[in-house]
Amino acid sequence: MSVNIYIDHNFYDNNAYGYENHSDNNKSDECCVDDSYNPNSQISSEDNVLNKNPNELVYITKSGDLTKLDHVSQYAPLSGDNRIDYSNYCAIVIDVLRASTTISTLLELYDKVYITDSIEKTMNFPNSIRMGERNGIKIDEFDYGNSPVEILKDKNKITEFAKNGGNLVLTTTNGTRVLNSIISDDIYMGSINNAEAVAKEVYNTAVEKDKDIVLIPCHRCGDFAIEDYIGAALIVENILKIPGNKITKQLEQLIPLRSTIKFDWKNTILNSKSGQGLRDKGYPYDVLYSVQENIYDNVGKYNQKENYVYRV
Amino acid sequence: MSVNIYIDHNFYDNNAYGYENHSDNNKSDECCVDDSYNPNSQISSEDNVLNKNPNELVYITKSGDLTKLDHVSQYAPLSGDNRIDYSNYCAIVIDVLRASTTISTLLELYDKVYITDSIEKTMNFPNSIRMGERNGIKIDEFDYGNSPVEILKDKNKITEFAKNGGNLVLTTTNGTRVLNSIISDDIYMGSINNAEAVAKEVYNTAVEKDKDIVLIPCHRCGDFAIEDYIGAALIVENILKIPGNKITKQLEQLIPLRSTIKFDWKNTILNSKSGQGLRDKGYPYDVLYSVQENIYDNVGKYNQKENYVYRV
Repeated sequence: MSVNIYIDHNFYDNNAYGYENHSDNNKSDECCVDDSYNPNSQISSEDNVLNKNPNELVYITKSGDLTKLDHVSQYAPLSGDNRIDYSNYCAIVIDVLRASTTISTLLELYDKVYITDSIEKTMNFPNSIRMGERNGIKIDEFDYGNSPVEILKDKNKITEFAKNGGNLVLTTTNGTRVLNSIISDDIYMGSINNAEAVAKEVYNTAVEKDKDIVLIPCHRCGDFAIEDYIGAALIVENILKIPGNKITKQLEQLIPLRSTIKFDWKNTILNSKSGQGLRDKGYPYDVLYSVQENIYDNVGKYNQKENYVYRV
Repeated sequence: MSVNIYIDHNFYDNNAYGYENHSDNNKSDECCVDDSYNPNSQISSEDNVLNKNPNELVYITKSGDLTKLDHVSQYAPLSGDNRIDYSNYCAIVIDVLRASTTISTLLELYDKVYITDSIEKTMNFPNSIRMGERNGIKIDEFDYGNSPVEILKDKNKITEFAKNGGNLVLTTTNGTRVLNSIISDDIYMGSINNAEAVAKEVYNTAVEKDKDIVLIPCHRCGDFAIEDYIGAALIVENILKIPGNKITKQLEQLIPLRSTIKFDWKNTILNSKSGQGLRDKGYPYDVLYSVQENIYDNVGKYNQKENYVYRV
């Protein structure tokens, strides 16, 4: 019996998915925004699909893939039969900047974090600390942004609040979308901060349940995000370091992924589009913090029915 | 106006495509063999999908993708509406071991090579030198295998034959399948031997026709082939070296590809599954020859209607 490792391309694949060539200005809040919050008031126009040169957009070229395009262009989770069935896999969802990193940080403070994909749904948690972002910026009425460094500054306060029965609620965009677009009983969050811990936990679960492992880089609005790919590479590397591991096949397909961490990958992330974007928006320390390897031992697993991540 | 570069994942994507879990032994010649030639008599059982442990096969898990699986599991070219529409792209088809390399070699000898995907179709060329392989081994009744080194040994004879009106006909498996599975007026073959030449030619054509560029690693029977990925990386690198080039976007998504050639990529190819397979089958010099960068200036373009590659 062996365990295989795969990389998911569903959330970035220029053939299967891609930007739609929007021409309707009323759709301007479709990109990673699913409620009435208006990102355009706070972000530069470069972040808006609408303002991109149509020549730079990726089109669907293959017949039969229009349904997929529709799903992804709306940046809502896939639903029902369109969800990706990873029942036979342990899935590791990776959103380094910043959902995975924030969750890993929160699980150091308390053992349970609710995850929502909309601001509205956070209203279901009256006694809560609400954390979240839209296009990288803290949501006005929330307590914190999706910012691990911001959260760490108040770590004692947050821990105290949670231990006294308060809920921790995080609203993110891409990360949550991916978590709810797949089907599996074993969905984990993976960050660089806990790469080794998640590698060991997931590998052991895969062996125990006779499953394969799929790593899912979340990317951003269909835009390739190298930091998620590098996060996946670091987790793979830690799986392959496990003594006597049963990963013997499919190694060749992992070469491109693993190659990304054979030189200065931290610099690659600092200079990535996401990294630069966060620095521009005033979160340089979040980027620096996100690339710290194995500072945490916690592993977060997603309860899909009740939408929370808990420390295993 | 800018030119974008994309990497095609259609001929290897463990989510969209993959091995079918064959249980019918009569289907044993489906893997890359489309006629009556029986590969099992000559190759090790490891090369046969049927003999693989079902636990190691990739299954279709996503609803709606069964049609694709059917296509690819038969290893026949996609046809009609199922072909991938790359009309707006200059496509570079890369099959380093060995179709691309053999074609580049043949175009040094003569300016036109017919390509077929079956032994039967070579019968349409009565006055011909026939070259081809099935599972890496020369087809018995043919003049040469799909072996550039074998061909080079008789280069004067082959050139003479072609100049006197004889046809050069090459039968391959994966490479031909990909050539006929896509739609474009601008399909090129790319090898490591002519990486720089093909990079310049394709880039110039893309600018002239206002197209993007897609690189298509052929892979093998749905199995990931790192040598094709590395070939793509070398071509990309040569495009990016063109002074004043207009490739300004989408660079982040190319990082994994480009990372593969930042360390000893020749060794990666020599030790790849394809490389080892060819060495085992008695073609070590073909592998060594295939990794020689920029030894040729020729560029082969595919005439899809008449199924030949010609020197542009």
